[in-house]
Amino acid sequence: MDDATFGPNPANHVPLTPLTFLAHAAAVFPDRTAVVHGAIRRSWAETYRRCRRLASALARAGVRRGDTVAVMAANTPEIYEAHFGVPMAGAVLNAINTRFDAATLAYVLEHGEARILITDRELSRTVAQALTSLPRAPLVIDIDDGQVPGGELLGAMDYEAFLATGDPADPWTPPADEWEAITLNYTSGTTGRPKGIIYHHRGAYLNALSNLLLWNMGPHPTYLWTVPMFHCNGWCFPWTLAAAAGTNVCLRAVRVEQLFALIREEKVTHLSCAPVVLQALSGASPALREGITHRVQLLTGASAPTPGTIESVERLGFEITHGYGLTESYGAATYCPWRPEWDALPVAERARLKARQGVPSPALEALMVADPATLAPVPRDGLTVGEIFLRGNTIMKGYLKSPAATDEAFAGGWLHTGDLAVWHPDGYVEIRDRSKDIIISGGENISSLEVESVLQRHPAVLEAAVVAQPDPKWGESPCAFVAVRDGADVDEREIVAFCRRHLAHYKVPKSVVLGPLPKSATGKVQKEALRERARSLPLLI
Amino acid sequence: MDDATFGPNPANHVPLTPLTFLAHAAAVFPDRTAVVHGAIRRSWAETYRRCRRLASALARAGVRRGDTVAVMAANTPEIYEAHFGVPMAGAVLNAINTRFDAATLAYVLEHGEARILITDRELSRTVAQALTSLPRAPLVIDIDDGQVPGGELLGAMDYEAFLATGDPADPWTPPADEWEAITLNYTSGTTGRPKGIIYHHRGAYLNALSNLLLWNMGPHPTYLWTVPMFHCNGWCFPWTLAAAAGTNVCLRAVRVEQLFALIREEKVTHLSCAPVVLQALSGASPALREGITHRVQLLTGASAPTPGTIESVERLGFEITHGYGLTESYGAATYCPWRPEWDALPVAERARLKARQGVPSPALEALMVADPATLAPVPRDGLTVGEIFLRGNTIMKGYLKSPAATDEAFAGGWLHTGDLAVWHPDGYVEIRDRSKDIIISGGENISSLEVESVLQRHPAVLEAAVVAQPDPKWGESPCAFVAVRDGADVDEREIVAFCRRHLAHYKVPKSVVLGPLPKSATGKVQKEALRERARSLPLLI
Repeated sequence: MDDATFGPNPANHVPLTPLTFLAHAAAVFPDRTAVVHGAIRRSWAETYRRCRRLASALARAGVRRGDTVAVMAANTPEIYEAHFGVPMAGAVLNAINTRFDAATLAYVLEHGEARILITDRELSRTVAQALTSLPRAPLVIDIDDGQVPGGELLGAMDYEAFLATGDPADPWTPPADEWEAITLNYTSGTTGRPKGIIYHHRGAYLNALSNLLLWNMGPHPTYLWTVPMFHCNGWCFPWTLAAAAGTNVCLRAVRVEQLFALIREEKVTHLSCAPVVLQALSGASPALREGITHRVQLLTGASAPTPGTIESVERLGFEITHGYGLTESYGAATYCPWRPEWDALPVAERARLKARQGVPSPALEALMVADPATLAPVPRDGLTVGEIFLRGNTIMKGYLKSPAATDEAFAGGWLHTGDLAVWHPDGYVEIRDRSKDIIISGGENISSLEVESVLQRHPAVLEAAVVAQPDPKWGESPCAFVAVRDGADVDEREIVAFCRRHLAHYKVPKSVVLGPLPKSATGKVQKEALRERARSLPLLI
Repeated sequence: MDDATFGPNPANHVPLTPLTFLAHAAAVFPDRTAVVHGAIRRSWAETYRRCRRLASALARAGVRRGDTVAVMAANTPEIYEAHFGVPMAGAVLNAINTRFDAATLAYVLEHGEARILITDRELSRTVAQALTSLPRAPLVIDIDDGQVPGGELLGAMDYEAFLATGDPADPWTPPADEWEAITLNYTSGTTGRPKGIIYHHRGAYLNALSNLLLWNMGPHPTYLWTVPMFHCNGWCFPWTLAAAAGTNVCLRAVRVEQLFALIREEKVTHLSCAPVVLQALSGASPALREGITHRVQLLTGASAPTPGTIESVERLGFEITHGYGLTESYGAATYCPWRPEWDALPVAERARLKARQGVPSPALEALMVADPATLAPVPRDGLTVGEIFLRGNTIMKGYLKSPAATDEAFAGGWLHTGDLAVWHPDGYVEIRDRSKDIIISGGENISSLEVESVLQRHPAVLEAAVVAQPDPKWGESPCAFVAVRDGADVDEREIVAFCRRHLAHYKVPKSVVLGPLPKSATGKVQKEALRERARSLPLLI
């Protein structure tokens, strides 16, 4: 059969882009609430008009196809609109981590070549400092959010005035090719300079729909924004919400009381969150739940929820789905599809199953756990540790201006995640550690995650992080940093004794430090800082 | 920002294809039931192995990339497997209408250049006759289904023996490019020769996922096969079911009793069907529902369900979703998303709303109702009639060997559907007629659908079809063919009187014929045949 004559034409080939989700939501559900932020409630029609205004204003300000527009802001309507308005101008959105210091911010603005910076008044000190060090400052637009006091307006005009310079009737620019960049996301750069990860329209479209499917969201979900939109573009949920014509409930900062109040008032159905938020929720008073009668779907990732966390969070009315991904994979790349037959299991067993993921999300094409050197898949025995490798259309285009790092990340035709895991016989995957977090003691590999999960079973332990500490005899040994629950009474010796009861002796931490854990902007424990501290600590045992 | 250096590589670009859905279902849910057919129950692991065997057997039989493999069969496991096994061999599946006569079949086999024909014993008479007229007969493989008596085995071997010549361990062939053809579907050809409509992997992937989203199917649906898999590849549901790791309940022929028995025994959750099946269901005795406690989701299309049908079918435990599409659009291209606020409306009002669709499915990029000559969109006033135009990645590649017809179908960068409709202010669309079914009387357009929907409101009317009849005074006038319900007592004059009460006088049929309506294989009324008859009928009024 010869059909070579039939190439793509405008009727049967349209570059995939999540921007059309917004146009559809506005056309079909113009009056449904799209965005809620305090007293602000905007419909899909209104949000579309504002995004078109933004695209038009950017174009009139000289932004051209492929230019970078940076936004540094809390989870407010402005950064939501930027996820559409910036690419609708043909430009690339760089949503910047709000915890970056001035030097890192300056580096990112220069490296990403931002022509415009839309920024939150609350962050003006850092931003002002960064701008002074730039040879060529971008045009600055201020988000002047009434919810936050203080700070300064730094820019040429505020966001609303800038919108007013645009015309919502101006045509906007769909991508000419779905491979065109849509966003640029800088890693938090715990070691070395942040890397600029490029997403394209094709991947953003596919991952946005994939979120709907893996989480079985249905039409019109109400989504509470605790994951920062600067973090993997909020796991692509800005676009997912438009695809489902749902409601975005904005949130500047995560406070447990406000979270429950919004769940109650806005009837939030879905919320995704970093482990730090899950941890905060798990300690919440049941009184906060008063008046909330519906269950809330909660998607979490990055570290496996413990049985205790799952139990307490489920008692508060949340149903947990566990995902896994990294900035290079547009957010959630794999997850733990729940099986009805697991419902009846005891909580510890359910938590054990839920702590796994590794089932490709609908948009991910392939995953393997394999030997990092040979790329030979490990046996699916739940025991052999290998590195997680991903492949598919929701994997980054590359690291901006770092072709060597890009080639390294893609060596052998797979994305190297740097995460170590075991592959179970049923195809699910369980993360053991980041490759750089593994502790090598007397030639044996110790998973810091395994030791942490034992520590977290101790009733007095709120959080724990385990890193390698130099050991004159064994090379390295585990060192535990432990945050204790309010009012709990426990000392270092008891922690060690508890670990002895639950771990092989060579895995027991030889140092224990009590106190709060240092965290990154996205709530990840900063192991690099802990490793630094561990180097100077005495061995306890 | 310059990212031009980052082209696609195997880690971040994989051609979209629905074939990977099968591999995933088998990897993650190997033991879940994939296919049920009478006493046959096969898991996803088993189904994947059989499809790989089929792909291997085809390759060993000399089938090469781009070759056509035809299947002419009832909805059995074999045609389901062919939807994967044939493209896994790099070949193109041509699923053939089982109602085609020998001459049409011979034409299709020759036009499509089928190298292999997999055929159902039940159809052996037609197939044998067609084969004798072919200069170069394909290799014939018989489906020897124990559920059906009679017929002859015509081929080189039966399907199971053919499978045994393949090795499930042989590697299979994913598409090198997502634009490659996956299937070939011949129109029923009510006028002229059937046209061969080409689908590609990209469209099949997107439409399969789109089905999940538009119908909110969730994980593991149980789907009853009443839509023939030869009809737009069963609206792409063979691939949808793999994507959701659901269960396919096969069905050779639609009989209402068996349908309810399967719903009860297999706990069917979803079923899509042509209007003729919906009509049959609406007349079913409530006793058939005994023992069925769950609601069944029903997706229908092609003609708008009447209030009476909706009411009676909902009483039987079905929830109707109304879609619209054509073979050129891979099945459902638009639908009627239901709004919670409509739930409380009276049934007639709900039916009026449900009779509309026109909201693009998640995979369709754009739709318009426009002037067929100028392509100028009509006003969204619910009154102005225009033609429906579609655009997106789930629109056919083209008509095989008919570049002129393809160019015509895509003129102006839109697929011309030939369906006439009005566009409502809320963005929904209501079909008025096929362009060729419109009746022009005294210069006024009369929608045959409008007259039919009035006729269907008469309690004695089971079905009605209205066509143009030559009229010496007005040019054309409407002629009604009416199938009456069992036991109903009504005559032609009463039908006319009823129409007079509910229609403008110029729209009232001038001839009425009582009796069953001629139907095509897919349950569509054959208006061409009725027009032929109408030419010789006397005018009643």
